[in-house]
Amino acid sequence: MATLTTRLTRMLDLRHPVVSAPMAFAGGGALAAAVSRAGGLGLIGGGYGDPAWLEAQFEAAAGARVGVGFITWSLRKSPSLLTDVLRHRPAAVMLSFGDPRPFVDEIHAAGARVICQCQDLGHVMDAVEVRADIVVAQGAEAGGHGAARGTLSFVPEAADYLAAHAPDTLLLAAGGIGDGRGLAASLALGADGVLLGTRLWASTEALVQPGHHQAILETDGDGTLRTTVADIARQIAWPRGFTARIRRNAFTDRWHSHEAELERNIAQEGPRYRQSFAAGDAEHTGVWFGEAAGVIHAIEPAAVIVERMADEAAQCLARQAAGIGGQP
Amino acid sequence: MATLTTRLTRMLDLRHPVVSAPMAFAGGGALAAAVSRAGGLGLIGGGYGDPAWLEAQFEAAAGARVGVGFITWSLRKSPSLLTDVLRHRPAAVMLSFGDPRPFVDEIHAAGARVICQCQDLGHVMDAVEVRADIVVAQGAEAGGHGAARGTLSFVPEAADYLAAHAPDTLLLAAGGIGDGRGLAASLALGADGVLLGTRLWASTEALVQPGHHQAILETDGDGTLRTTVADIARQIAWPRGFTARIRRNAFTDRWHSHEAELERNIAQEGPRYRQSFAAGDAEHTGVWFGEAAGVIHAIEPAAVIVERMADEAAQCLARQAAGIGGQP
Repeated sequence: MATLTTRLTRMLDLRHPVVSAPMAFAGGGALAAAVSRAGGLGLIGGGYGDPAWLEAQFEAAAGARVGVGFITWSLRKSPSLLTDVLRHRPAAVMLSFGDPRPFVDEIHAAGARVICQCQDLGHVMDAVEVRADIVVAQGAEAGGHGAARGTLSFVPEAADYLAAHAPDTLLLAAGGIGDGRGLAASLALGADGVLLGTRLWASTEALVQPGHHQAILETDGDGTLRTTVADIARQIAWPRGFTARIRRNAFTDRWHSHEAELERNIAQEGPRYRQSFAAGDAEHTGVWFGEAAGVIHAIEPAAVIVERMADEAAQCLARQAAGIGGQP
Repeated sequence: MATLTTRLTRMLDLRHPVVSAPMAFAGGGALAAAVSRAGGLGLIGGGYGDPAWLEAQFEAAAGARVGVGFITWSLRKSPSLLTDVLRHRPAAVMLSFGDPRPFVDEIHAAGARVICQCQDLGHVMDAVEVRADIVVAQGAEAGGHGAARGTLSFVPEAADYLAAHAPDTLLLAAGGIGDGRGLAASLALGADGVLLGTRLWASTEALVQPGHHQAILETDGDGTLRTTVADIARQIAWPRGFTARIRRNAFTDRWHSHEAELERNIAQEGPRYRQSFAAGDAEHTGVWFGEAAGVIHAIEPAAVIVERMADEAAQCLARQAAGIGGQP
């Protein structure tokens, strides 16, 4: 098995430059532990802040060295969650979607690394200002919440900004990375590793309904869109500027571009959305994955995914390097 | 100087796996010739079909081996343009944004390669059906017209489709590629080369007003958006599904999300848009570049851009390959 040594593998003592995205609901302790045991770093999804669920997930991680991630604007409503979680001595805490400032010192004081997920260059500037250890440049291809920048253009621009202003801060690429080619490309673009969401959502350890897992196998990369309709239906008031990439289905066909109508019908549609989600229906609710769906053809154990990705990336880079010639 | 040998450099006998995008208005004969002389392949932008302008651009190419590209739905309105252009024996003809079917046989009969630019997997399937020689997977990061898929996820998925259904068809990546890191990443993702728009728009040979060139130097990758307002203002009826990425400026701030109002004001706004464009004003008209703006810091000769990109890509791949280790 080939390995890729990067600043990330050295900083966090990993075998592979792969971190799992702390996906709300789907990214529990079993997935995080499996990723960490395979040589990456797994992050438990702190989601919208259910303390009992989070405790159960740290228990499910069964002593593996994992981290955790929060939706920053949501964490602000119940900041004691962070204090609770730091008792588990996470290796890293990731903050996404909101001002990281109120939380960084507490995380650093607990000896954990601070990862700030960024959707544009402005966010990268903020992350540098708060002295993040690791910045994630997340492109619009990503499943779930995110924004508009494309991964391929955003990563090298973020790398240049970090090189000029915070050369010791590491960079992960996120959004649209589904296999070793995506990892190899991310390293070529200047990242020190990748943050994997969709590819690990499609793992046996992810907390995903079988009907939703079946749906990703039947969906190509054209079959998703960025929209606000899932958040409207769930009545979760996300800040402006963020949308969620989910599967195109009967639910998005009905409501995308008819958001005001959905809001007027929320008394019926809210409970109906949640019921369909709980039932694992893949047509009448949000199904949370990104454009990497197009290269995902099986639900597999996280260890298989992480190890194959590292292997493929190494082969891919070696093959490309073999195409280099000199010329006088 | 390092070189990268790929299926593209072999098919078209190039030194570098780089093709210039046939940018309407900006991509004239001087730019195409400069790219070809530097070892890539330059494509003249057929745009909206002005025969006199096109003749002048082939003249400006001064005998260099170049190709040409058309906006397919526009070419359908004046198909004789293709016949005229084929007399110049272009190396390749690129078709973008519409059904390539009516034109492919005539291009092949003239001995030119057919390049089909695709914005989603459905387009790739169409391109394979018409036996395109080269498919371009164009991501949303691209400047000018395009659609929604991100380059990083679209390219490997397109590569898999071609490998399974048309293994002799080559693949170029487009959208967000601004330097050697983008070229290296594209090759890692499975492309045989890249189609460069924005980076060559910012070249001394591009037919771009100085005010617009100045604007790209002052804009980072966050400073663009995909919108229909430029086409509405120009009264060019683009088919649904395509938008144009342009610079965020006073014009887009005023009209993006107010498209119906712009249509109602077209008698004033149409001429005003064109006047500002002609004057090189970068605030009150469409300024046509993509997210790669964030890594572009100088307007340079096309040859410098192409050669440095190939060199950087080779170095970048060699550096990454050096990070590969074995493990028992």
